[in-house]
Amino acid sequence: MREVAIVGAGMTRFGELWKYSLRDMFVEAASGALHDAGADRLDSMYVGCMSGGQFVGQEHLGPLMADHLGMTGVAAVHVESACASGGVALRQAFMEVASGMSDLVLAAGIEKMNDGADVTNVLATAADQETEVYYGITFPGLYAMIARAHMQQYGTTEEDLAWVAVKNHKHGAMNEKAQFRREVTAEEVMSSSMVSEPLRLLHCSPVTDGAAAVLVCPLEMAKQFTDRPVKILASGLATGSMALADREDPAVLDSVQKSGERAYEMAGIGPRDVNVAEVHDCFTIAEICCTEALGFVEKGKGGPAAKEGFTALGGCIPVNTSGGLKSKGHPVGATGIAQTIEIFRQLRGEAGARQVENARIGLTQNMGGSGASSVVHIFEGV
Amino acid sequence: MREVAIVGAGMTRFGELWKYSLRDMFVEAASGALHDAGADRLDSMYVGCMSGGQFVGQEHLGPLMADHLGMTGVAAVHVESACASGGVALRQAFMEVASGMSDLVLAAGIEKMNDGADVTNVLATAADQETEVYYGITFPGLYAMIARAHMQQYGTTEEDLAWVAVKNHKHGAMNEKAQFRREVTAEEVMSSSMVSEPLRLLHCSPVTDGAAAVLVCPLEMAKQFTDRPVKILASGLATGSMALADREDPAVLDSVQKSGERAYEMAGIGPRDVNVAEVHDCFTIAEICCTEALGFVEKGKGGPAAKEGFTALGGCIPVNTSGGLKSKGHPVGATGIAQTIEIFRQLRGEAGARQVENARIGLTQNMGGSGASSVVHIFEGV
Repeated sequence: MREVAIVGAGMTRFGELWKYSLRDMFVEAASGALHDAGADRLDSMYVGCMSGGQFVGQEHLGPLMADHLGMTGVAAVHVESACASGGVALRQAFMEVASGMSDLVLAAGIEKMNDGADVTNVLATAADQETEVYYGITFPGLYAMIARAHMQQYGTTEEDLAWVAVKNHKHGAMNEKAQFRREVTAEEVMSSSMVSEPLRLLHCSPVTDGAAAVLVCPLEMAKQFTDRPVKILASGLATGSMALADREDPAVLDSVQKSGERAYEMAGIGPRDVNVAEVHDCFTIAEICCTEALGFVEKGKGGPAAKEGFTALGGCIPVNTSGGLKSKGHPVGATGIAQTIEIFRQLRGEAGARQVENARIGLTQNMGGSGASSVVHIFEGV
Repeated sequence: MREVAIVGAGMTRFGELWKYSLRDMFVEAASGALHDAGADRLDSMYVGCMSGGQFVGQEHLGPLMADHLGMTGVAAVHVESACASGGVALRQAFMEVASGMSDLVLAAGIEKMNDGADVTNVLATAADQETEVYYGITFPGLYAMIARAHMQQYGTTEEDLAWVAVKNHKHGAMNEKAQFRREVTAEEVMSSSMVSEPLRLLHCSPVTDGAAAVLVCPLEMAKQFTDRPVKILASGLATGSMALADREDPAVLDSVQKSGERAYEMAGIGPRDVNVAEVHDCFTIAEICCTEALGFVEKGKGGPAAKEGFTALGGCIPVNTSGGLKSKGHPVGATGIAQTIEIFRQLRGEAGARQVENARIGLTQNMGGSGASSVVHIFEGV
């Protein structure tokens, strides 16, 4: 396999972008990534998106986006793994370059959620339609059950959950691309309106429009485009049971653990070697379960990590320095690429007030549904 | 790049499969492919599907299908390029094995179209929503305009179009998996009800349920699974303008030509080296345009090829020996893999009454929308 690097990145602001269409957002992010690398051509591109069809009545996003970028003719494919669609787009780009099939590949993620669709029900099509959705459950309910299981088994408290939001909003307040650039207190989180017990409004990531893109090429070509490429050391993808009821322990995310193990093995490192990570905090409980599954904290001990500062900026393993899905926003198909861009910035020393000192190894973990799919990438600044 | 081969294939019958759900169809096809190769494990799988979300309310098909196949944990990704989704699934599997990332990868395609969805409008989400669909056009209308342009420029006749259906139904009558196992006459085609002038009912591929899967591995491992592997010589993917109005000549399918050129170059062969081909005949005019774009016939001369027997069984280059989309059926996400299976059978000498004598090199061409994407694969029996 050829060694692969990221040489450019671009993204829109995340938020309610009423004046942008899906294609507008894509073009801003993709041309930003090309401009960042000084590249004027592409061999191929991947578009991660959960459901252009259901959100805005548009499928076939590969050729549509290539066309609107002014790159008609290039190979272009839409990939989907629910909220992990962006991470999967990066993985496909990585493998295409690693194989020798293509040199310059764009990995992009997009989602237009604020456009009139019934968002909660569209998102629910990423859960098991026959055994879950048919009976009326949607994702806040599924994650509420995960949270309840974690609280019961490990003594995790409502305050522990709240501090994940406090930490991520504190980080996000420093991110100019974030949907919510403001801090929140634990009291505000714990008194916000109830969505699905024990998850309140401020435990949930928002409904967001946005796009993000990175340009990938062989490491040996990277210096043509930038002095500071970021190498992709590893990609790990795993699936887990689709339905929560089929899992031995709903408080454990098997797919996250497996995808992490696969990536650590490929990179030849362990969780203690990671200096900065973006993990999938679609709900506060998800960050707790993911940091445990990735080995940043012991199983069952993730609850207090945010409050104690272990996963905060300045802590042992800063998690979600971008603000995470919680504060930066969660345009589902774009999230995996936005996570990648935060790590790209961190490993190049470009994260400004959010910079983790001496960050050399970074990790992203992007998850689909209630954890039926998870993709982990590990990066190194070179 | 490692050399890659197909070692097993499985598919459902194509048709109105009211008793099958999307997951039932997948499991029958995928377990058929594994059984065919005597394989009991997988590293990874791709699921080509145009829109589980819109057709049956189910996205996140990678993990769902892995789970139902009894392979929970394996890497699994859904890919989409409208009606070229199956071909794209094969391409991703090919690159993943070629890169060295995985050894045993399943490439599958599925679509459940008969389940209550408004099929024509769901399919239309593969056209340009802003410049085409919004104004009311759907695919029969788009292909009717392509047909009119071809008739006007090259003198193609309604009878020429009809003979594509006659030829493909003749082939499909010999295919036990085909939706319509019966021959039709040119008179029947030319007197069938008008859909969108000049295209009548029997010029159109039907609404179909079905699934198909092939197992891909490194060529050097292939003999563990079969005595007759089929090598994938090349994969070419290209995009074209999304909207018909943006094309210089609506009778020319640029993406098909480019994807063919890329595949021929990679395989180091030309169109005259191909012994048997499956091309994307979603409408009769599409087969004519595709055979021209692939260089099987001269530009503008594709019209009479079916009537004259040039593209029929026993002719110079038999096209759509399976019956094509027209007679075998067109479950959109599954079509690219079903085409692959026909070539797999032909190159192994297993095509029974449809066998092309001494077939050594085969080609598949799978197209999305009105030609905004096209993927070509070239195969060799070894």
